[in-house]
Amino acid sequence: MDSKDKETKVKQASRRRFLTQGAALAGLAAVGGMRSVHAQVSEASPRPPDETGFDVYYGVRSHFETSVRERIPGQEVFMQGSLTPHQDSMGIITPSGLHYTNVRFHQNPPAIDPRQHHLLIHGLVDRPLIFTMEELKRLPSVSRFHFIECTSNTSGIGTSAAQGGGGFHNGFRTVQESHGKLSNSQWTGVLLSTLLREAGVKKDGTWIISESADAGHHTQPLPIEKAMDDCLVAYGQNGEAVRPENGYPVRLVVPGSIGINNVKHLRRIKVVDEFYKFRWSYGGRLANVGGKTVWTGFVKPVKSVITHPSGGMRVPSPGFFEIRGLAWSGAGTIRRVEVSTDGGQTWKDAQLEDPVLPKACTRFTFPWTWNGQEIMIQSRATDDKGVIQQTFAEYTANSGSQNGFIYPWKVTREGSVENALPVPA
Amino acid sequence: MDSKDKETKVKQASRRRFLTQGAALAGLAAVGGMRSVHAQVSEASPRPPDETGFDVYYGVRSHFETSVRERIPGQEVFMQGSLTPHQDSMGIITPSGLHYTNVRFHQNPPAIDPRQHHLLIHGLVDRPLIFTMEELKRLPSVSRFHFIECTSNTSGIGTSAAQGGGGFHNGFRTVQESHGKLSNSQWTGVLLSTLLREAGVKKDGTWIISESADAGHHTQPLPIEKAMDDCLVAYGQNGEAVRPENGYPVRLVVPGSIGINNVKHLRRIKVVDEFYKFRWSYGGRLANVGGKTVWTGFVKPVKSVITHPSGGMRVPSPGFFEIRGLAWSGAGTIRRVEVSTDGGQTWKDAQLEDPVLPKACTRFTFPWTWNGQEIMIQSRATDDKGVIQQTFAEYTANSGSQNGFIYPWKVTREGSVENALPVPA
Repeated sequence: MDSKDKETKVKQASRRRFLTQGAALAGLAAVGGMRSVHAQVSEASPRPPDETGFDVYYGVRSHFETSVRERIPGQEVFMQGSLTPHQDSMGIITPSGLHYTNVRFHQNPPAIDPRQHHLLIHGLVDRPLIFTMEELKRLPSVSRFHFIECTSNTSGIGTSAAQGGGGFHNGFRTVQESHGKLSNSQWTGVLLSTLLREAGVKKDGTWIISESADAGHHTQPLPIEKAMDDCLVAYGQNGEAVRPENGYPVRLVVPGSIGINNVKHLRRIKVVDEFYKFRWSYGGRLANVGGKTVWTGFVKPVKSVITHPSGGMRVPSPGFFEIRGLAWSGAGTIRRVEVSTDGGQTWKDAQLEDPVLPKACTRFTFPWTWNGQEIMIQSRATDDKGVIQQTFAEYTANSGSQNGFIYPWKVTREGSVENALPVPA
Repeated sequence: MDSKDKETKVKQASRRRFLTQGAALAGLAAVGGMRSVHAQVSEASPRPPDETGFDVYYGVRSHFETSVRERIPGQEVFMQGSLTPHQDSMGIITPSGLHYTNVRFHQNPPAIDPRQHHLLIHGLVDRPLIFTMEELKRLPSVSRFHFIECTSNTSGIGTSAAQGGGGFHNGFRTVQESHGKLSNSQWTGVLLSTLLREAGVKKDGTWIISESADAGHHTQPLPIEKAMDDCLVAYGQNGEAVRPENGYPVRLVVPGSIGINNVKHLRRIKVVDEFYKFRWSYGGRLANVGGKTVWTGFVKPVKSVITHPSGGMRVPSPGFFEIRGLAWSGAGTIRRVEVSTDGGQTWKDAQLEDPVLPKACTRFTFPWTWNGQEIMIQSRATDDKGVIQQTFAEYTANSGSQNGFIYPWKVTREGSVENALPVPA
């Protein structure tokens, strides 16, 4: 399907069908494009920021701000991974420039010209379709806050040279290292179900496979039930175009699922009738349930972590110091976060900040007065399915199948904050 | 109060009082600071983005994206004003680099070192207080979505050489020109009421005045009732530090009020017993109601505007083309947005996108199939106070005292979109 001739044929076929069906979307694929207002404003000649850092056209942060993504240890050559600095996070938005990245087997995101980019939908459909970016942007849109989290976040997967993972839980020094493969954005785009309905999924279409335009042709399968539920074909991130390292010009957002399913630089969706395993499809586990192939490990479990204070920070003096953190669940909406400041003996409700949204990060705050003694602080979240974040002991007893364990920090008498996870037996 | 000696004395006094009162915040002003995790990560040597635009440490947008703030026409010399490009807006977040700016009588935002910045609270209070940025960040925080809108947004005020304004309504070519002095962010900081309660407002403290550390010492009054309500002393904007041109390192956010009250680079709040008029205090009107001075024109009225399609854009062909826009009210929460595509004869409900938050922009969408004929499209919003956006005729009949009028766009047979406001008689 990658050859130019074949694509052109499908394109012509899809346009013909599209234009003749008389649906609400008729005319969508017609020749011509929206004259962008960019044409006007780009005529202004942008100038570099002056010594105060002020760029009238597109602003930059203060040069006193130094919070940055960190590379994933041990992955400098292997992949272009980087971690969100949650120790500096505020509210629920991850600034797009600090969104985590985890890219496989190629060094840099592709430099895609959006005017040349197409999204093809084919396979077991009534009408193969091909969309330009302008055509996608005409369609019914949604804007939704969702987190994206790597399957290896909080576990050691991917951080060891052996790639075996699982052993580094108590080796993380900062919340950036332990939880930096999590970010939260407002994504804008078309519901994947809108596109699939337009194409018409045939009865035997039970899975889709999504392909990236990146150099590695990253490809992932997805059950049709999820594809028709709440997945987004997103061209917007936090009010502007999706960033290059996050899938420009358009990506899949699979709310609540493991990060690897959120295929970037989306160029092709094929509807198929069975599960296909790809190079990086290790994110889930297949099981045979009643003769049907079911994908488990697909949904991120309920989690939370204290970001302020967290590993590597210092509480400078006894007294009031607000505890803040993030909570999220791939299964739904956060209903409760509790905080313990006495090593887990007692728990008190934290305050949840509006908005509290499904499959999105929720900010919590908790008033705390430090008495100067060594203590352990930790948070545990409960989602609207009634699932509560498990302890690390429960996690290890469960063979690490769910990594949503409680993450404790120790505050020493000197005020320094350290990872307090027990060393696994 | 500006002399160094005086400040030092107040500082010493405030610390003495602060430390001895034994309140929940005791110890707050103690010497020492939180060792920032920045210290660790800034040791990494950031490298410039490569040819794909990928910066692992702090990402930038694709070089194919050219949406920028535009200067406010006629204000190049006068002020460093710039307008948000709402024609490209998505969801409810204004990217911080595209937040509008409107700065008086000085060219650039000050380059403030946050380690040297202090916020002084004094005047009619029991305990004058002075805070470092680190001390502010220890305190109870909130993160809230709020719009900031210049009092002159949608009107001609400030766009004419005479600064008289009011005559340019139908001269705006784009939604950036007509509505670009509006932006929406998630702001993180301390409630001003928290700080004022800590200082203890005396009985005769009925107003506050807030002063900026900018070169023009921008100063604004605010009634104590509003100050004790929902105002934020904000150090965070969209998940990171407030941007330089938006008040770094800390600013006042006065939800729902005219933009000029949101004092940037906040360094001083003085509690006083009467209204003081400052250079730019024209944003409201004082009235004597029952012997009490009341400030009217303080709250931004309910408004909405269609951003997609909008002036300067082109609908490339007949067929489905989603109408999208923003709605907001300084008085509360948007409850309803209606769209008319027949010149105002009939109105239908638009879809409001979650989250719908008080004194914040709400995104609405409306399915539309263009038949290729010349038509007029427009939106009207209603807030939870039951106030409905007025027509331009009502606005002009009211002598322009409320500028929340309905803003129509004309779509020509060629598909070009133009300002359709009637020329005032």
